[in-house]
Amino acid sequence: MKVSPLLTDLYQLTMLQGYFESGMNEKAVFEFFVRELPENRNFLIAAGLEQVISFVEELRFSSDEIEWLKSLRIFKKEFLEWLKELRFTGDLYAMPEGTIFFQNEPIIQICAPICEAQLIETRLINIVHYQTLVASKAIRMIFAAPGKLFIDFGLRRAHGAEAGLFAARASYIAGFSGTSTVLAGKLYGIPVFGTMAHSFIQAHESEISAFKNFALSMPENTVFLVDTYDTVEGVKNAIRVAKELEKEGIKIKGVRIDSGDLLSLSKKVREILDKEGFSDVKILTSGNLDEYVIKKLYESGAPIDGFGVGTLMVTSADSPYLNCAYKLMEYKGVPKRKRSEGKQTLPGRKQVYRYYKHGKMEFDVIALKEERLDGRPLIEQFIKDGKRVKELPSLEKIRAYVKEQIEELPEYLKKLKKSEEYPVKISEGIKRWIKKIDEDS
Amino acid sequence: MKVSPLLTDLYQLTMLQGYFESGMNEKAVFEFFVRELPENRNFLIAAGLEQVISFVEELRFSSDEIEWLKSLRIFKKEFLEWLKELRFTGDLYAMPEGTIFFQNEPIIQICAPICEAQLIETRLINIVHYQTLVASKAIRMIFAAPGKLFIDFGLRRAHGAEAGLFAARASYIAGFSGTSTVLAGKLYGIPVFGTMAHSFIQAHESEISAFKNFALSMPENTVFLVDTYDTVEGVKNAIRVAKELEKEGIKIKGVRIDSGDLLSLSKKVREILDKEGFSDVKILTSGNLDEYVIKKLYESGAPIDGFGVGTLMVTSADSPYLNCAYKLMEYKGVPKRKRSEGKQTLPGRKQVYRYYKHGKMEFDVIALKEERLDGRPLIEQFIKDGKRVKELPSLEKIRAYVKEQIEELPEYLKKLKKSEEYPVKISEGIKRWIKKIDEDS
Repeated sequence: MKVSPLLTDLYQLTMLQGYFESGMNEKAVFEFFVRELPENRNFLIAAGLEQVISFVEELRFSSDEIEWLKSLRIFKKEFLEWLKELRFTGDLYAMPEGTIFFQNEPIIQICAPICEAQLIETRLINIVHYQTLVASKAIRMIFAAPGKLFIDFGLRRAHGAEAGLFAARASYIAGFSGTSTVLAGKLYGIPVFGTMAHSFIQAHESEISAFKNFALSMPENTVFLVDTYDTVEGVKNAIRVAKELEKEGIKIKGVRIDSGDLLSLSKKVREILDKEGFSDVKILTSGNLDEYVIKKLYESGAPIDGFGVGTLMVTSADSPYLNCAYKLMEYKGVPKRKRSEGKQTLPGRKQVYRYYKHGKMEFDVIALKEERLDGRPLIEQFIKDGKRVKELPSLEKIRAYVKEQIEELPEYLKKLKKSEEYPVKISEGIKRWIKKIDEDS
Repeated sequence: MKVSPLLTDLYQLTMLQGYFESGMNEKAVFEFFVRELPENRNFLIAAGLEQVISFVEELRFSSDEIEWLKSLRIFKKEFLEWLKELRFTGDLYAMPEGTIFFQNEPIIQICAPICEAQLIETRLINIVHYQTLVASKAIRMIFAAPGKLFIDFGLRRAHGAEAGLFAARASYIAGFSGTSTVLAGKLYGIPVFGTMAHSFIQAHESEISAFKNFALSMPENTVFLVDTYDTVEGVKNAIRVAKELEKEGIKIKGVRIDSGDLLSLSKKVREILDKEGFSDVKILTSGNLDEYVIKKLYESGAPIDGFGVGTLMVTSADSPYLNCAYKLMEYKGVPKRKRSEGKQTLPGRKQVYRYYKHGKMEFDVIALKEERLDGRPLIEQFIKDGKRVKELPSLEKIRAYVKEQIEELPEYLKKLKKSEEYPVKISEGIKRWIKKIDEDS
């Protein structure tokens, strides 16, 4: 979705006028990072870069937008004329989407004239914060029940339109198989799933007629919702219909249970299905699921094949935001450091190096760009002088990259509860700058 | 923001094909309601109706969208042709925006051919759920510190673009004075606020030069951020600049503190400002604020004039979603009831009546539309046969309506913690229907 550049904080524009009027527009380095991992997160997955890159490339104010800004009566004519011509001409470095990362590690780095780097702050955070939040939440479902099918059902209670779309995308990156959000299929090419709601059953004379009408209309998409009135009766009705439809060559693919005690119901339903010769019919569940509920079901041996996960994932309900920031790290070549209580930053322009032992991640080092350590560098250049210099990977490639890294992830980081912290070291070069800046001030 | 009608769950479209093929399209009644109030909420504020009405009025599929649906290979040609012509032709009833409401009370009611009523479900919930969530959160800030200034600062960590915009709108409805989100100013006419970030200070040689440049550029918008290095030094620098600028006729309006112990810092800052003759300079604060922190500051007598509230409000962090639903209540004139465990609904088409005692809300009754009780009916008609029949109130009017109702709200419901439940009674008519439906099945 293309969004107006006015989707920003007013202070970005007032600061820009301040810079403009005092002629300040030297090169600045800003970095986006997460200060600390939320409770119950042992790592995060970077997501949203593709949308950030489009945003940066398309950044420009229309005449209509400039006119409206004029009407606020706080901006000067010369400034608005200059703003109208403003384009992003800087460099963008980032960890590729899908990269696993940790506290204080820059995942996006902008090197640009300070007005450009400042102006993009709000929307950049708005995109990356949320997609990263959801990707990092979604992968926990997969850890909770490895090998199962996961589908995003979250649109209705996502926080607005874009949250629904971004959640579909971010959960797909993390390893979900698809989404119920149709528009996410069109925009991102994500597989879409869906069959029927309770209202469909209720509108019919009986469950049986609802199932039958549905299957005849969509013989390839036969998942029946069985819990509208009584789940056990519902699955029996599904079987009755399945037997009739077999004669017409239509096969039932699955049943969905959306309420009640999913452990005992799924066992009962499996038993009934198997007894009647429908052992290839899958059981799908939904309704207030998150990684904690899913893990319990999985470990209790619930015969569930797939999970539709909605609200608790798309709102990242146990931790609905990240303590993230986009901060000035260098201006005119001089490293900068914010010292506000509890919000101190690491100065300078950085690279993050990852070290491995026996194929598993062992520790990371955050270093200055010029230090050049021997670990695996995680940050790459995507935009140079305003032009894209690297092709963006497809969602399929990003998913594969996430899978690869999961192989390299030490077991203790896969736990759903907070485990010991992954070591993120600070290089000697950064330590020297911190000391120098703190002494000088 | 206009959004594609493909922003929906796939099952809406598969159900529609099912209805279409079996020729079912009689009039249905769906209602949107919240099943139970979240922890720490004693009431909710309805918001988002204006966007729902626009969505319903503008609902139509473009050729491009229909083509894309065809490519999924689950929809039939005749269905897609019919879908292309589909418009909303039904009725919409609702509690006006800003209405205080409680568990199980329908706040939106759709009476339309079932295909239309079904199709709009996902986006309707997506809009109303989030705006209601935020309005209901935002008003708690105002209860925590009555008479203070509140500004929405949440865009960057809101869940995507629309969440940022909707949060600005919903918090303004609840009584906030404005937002930092520029586009919310343009789209909704909400006052926008903002001055400078830490990076602006850091990019300058000194705090003093940053303050000076800013004030000279925007003499009407002089709020200085004083905590970049050291808050006490920062306010002293602000005063130095203020004294210089006085000569040029520029007055300093405020200082903002964004970190540290806001109670002790605000006291120190107030003292310094007053001693130097700047007792009219306001103190604004921000940084991880919510109603709990604000209440503590207020009750401790922190001399803070205004609060910039962001992440914790726009994500409704202590309760990031509502347990809400949009359910079929009647089809072909017959009341319907879902009986899934924990998700039972009240059958029939309803009205909610509010009763008062000595000017304060005493209890509500949810009744069937035809019962006509003597309380104040809360639900009004907005759309008839697809056409708007009622003018929508301005945001200013909605704000005034919220204020009025706050006067009528009993004290126990204004508490930030869960207090005793406001009585919501079920009418005899509804009880009879429940009994009948449960007996018949």
